[in-house]
Amino acid sequence: MRRVSDVGEFGLIERIARLVPRRPGPGVRVGIGDDAAVLGVRRGEDLVATTDAFVAGVHFRLDQETPRTAGRRAAVGCLSDLAAMGARPLGLLLALAVPARTPLATVLDFARGIAGEAARHGTPLVGGNVARARELSATLTALGAVARGRALRRDRGRAGDRLFVTGALGRSAFERARGSVRHVGAPRLRAGQRLRGVRGIGACIDVSDGLVADLGQLCRASRVAARIEPARVPRAAARGGRVPERLALAGGEDYELLFSVRPAGPGAAALRRRLGLPVTEIGRLEAGPARVRGIPAGPGGFRHF
Amino acid sequence: MRRVSDVGEFGLIERIARLVPRRPGPGVRVGIGDDAAVLGVRRGEDLVATTDAFVAGVHFRLDQETPRTAGRRAAVGCLSDLAAMGARPLGLLLALAVPARTPLATVLDFARGIAGEAARHGTPLVGGNVARARELSATLTALGAVARGRALRRDRGRAGDRLFVTGALGRSAFERARGSVRHVGAPRLRAGQRLRGVRGIGACIDVSDGLVADLGQLCRASRVAARIEPARVPRAAARGGRVPERLALAGGEDYELLFSVRPAGPGAAALRRRLGLPVTEIGRLEAGPARVRGIPAGPGGFRHF
Repeated sequence: MRRVSDVGEFGLIERIARLVPRRPGPGVRVGIGDDAAVLGVRRGEDLVATTDAFVAGVHFRLDQETPRTAGRRAAVGCLSDLAAMGARPLGLLLALAVPARTPLATVLDFARGIAGEAARHGTPLVGGNVARARELSATLTALGAVARGRALRRDRGRAGDRLFVTGALGRSAFERARGSVRHVGAPRLRAGQRLRGVRGIGACIDVSDGLVADLGQLCRASRVAARIEPARVPRAAARGGRVPERLALAGGEDYELLFSVRPAGPGAAALRRRLGLPVTEIGRLEAGPARVRGIPAGPGGFRHF
Repeated sequence: MRRVSDVGEFGLIERIARLVPRRPGPGVRVGIGDDAAVLGVRRGEDLVATTDAFVAGVHFRLDQETPRTAGRRAAVGCLSDLAAMGARPLGLLLALAVPARTPLATVLDFARGIAGEAARHGTPLVGGNVARARELSATLTALGAVARGRALRRDRGRAGDRLFVTGALGRSAFERARGSVRHVGAPRLRAGQRLRGVRGIGACIDVSDGLVADLGQLCRASRVAARIEPARVPRAAARGGRVPERLALAGGEDYELLFSVRPAGPGAAALRRRLGLPVTEIGRLEAGPARVRGIPAGPGGFRHF
């Protein structure tokens, strides 16, 4: 079995570069291979950038999922942050940290998962870095663009806004709890871009740490409280039924969009048509100290440390 | 002694955010605290982006330098890639990976080194990520902008070009060899931007892995050979003399700019005035397979794996 140490840093970079089309797209002026990537931004657009680490033993376990699935989930998690800003994706940078004894096939499958998922969502891998480390990890940077001053933000919520969420929640957490992860969410990039044009749009965030945790972040940023009706939170299908409520509330890695709309804005049915996705109204924002009301005691979200 | 686990993920993020001015600059539309940063790009500019990992035990050793020096060097190494593209800096993203038992002061000094050096070079820290990991590391993403189609590139060298390098080389390697690192280079951001306007500019790369190794990369990208005169390579001062030639050739982490200029372009004296830095002619590009000629056998560069 070949290991990373058999091909070396540049051998590994070369093999990763081969996973990427030679002409990744008209917006990529300089791709993999120079000191930095160069990407075109349209007139009147701002740059949107986000970085996310995905560490073995913390964010993924290779005894619970394939390297490819882990890589796909890493890419989706990072692109989801672009979606939450309403950005159109431009490109992805990949900083891989790899123990020297790692099987080459493992690293390449991991990278293949990342590059494949990124390409699928219109975000070519345009550069990166490879370093030796004690544990496998990928730090991804997603780059996007948004019409100037029009980014969706988590601090734009107001008391009175209705709260909506796309899709259904809890499937990733359900699989994790069962010890076998196969599900890979989808970054809601198109929905995010369409949300920017919705009349009365308030705040927006993606559900990555769990609905209650991320709603808490939205509340803190917007300086409002939230009240949700747990029974209305859309739960993903599982074993012929639905996932438990607590996983839908606190599971995390759902990568759906959670957003608020002013009282005069559209309702769930109109939003569903506009976004091309299931949209459910789950509660509202209220005046008061930043916290989430109406939930059973307990559900937190994923926490490091 | 307080440890990272005592303040938790959000406590750590909050403390890092406090290292950054609340109003980081007019180009930063959304800074730390949302799903992604939003940065303004001027009309007619392309986006430049680069990512770099800086791992404990690989890129730095806390028994040889302070966390602050390590952080400063991490920032300089990443910004140097922007300099090599001729970009003006826009912002920096920081993905910190931290063992839970790490002293809080160590992590904050490390982050202070990064944020301080970035701010000093006009690159505010605009976002990032904190994750638990088995070893301390920082993965930095530097974002910049460059006039459309005008980025400096390593693949623009031609046979006949003269080769130049800024500053003097070998000081970082000299200190590393002695087991005490204090020197922090400077990313040549202003020089890189000025180089873009130099008549007859060819290829450009920064010296991060060592002069010979990086020149090899320039040759491979440009499909030319290079011939240097080792005696002309400017060596940094050390102990009343100069660092050994092999450290200037192969040491790395110099963060000077190595570039080529067409025969009809300016010479070292004019370039010195233009860039406001010492500039030395060290050889030329020649037709032939990509390799560096004229050097004593041996000097490689830093290699992972």
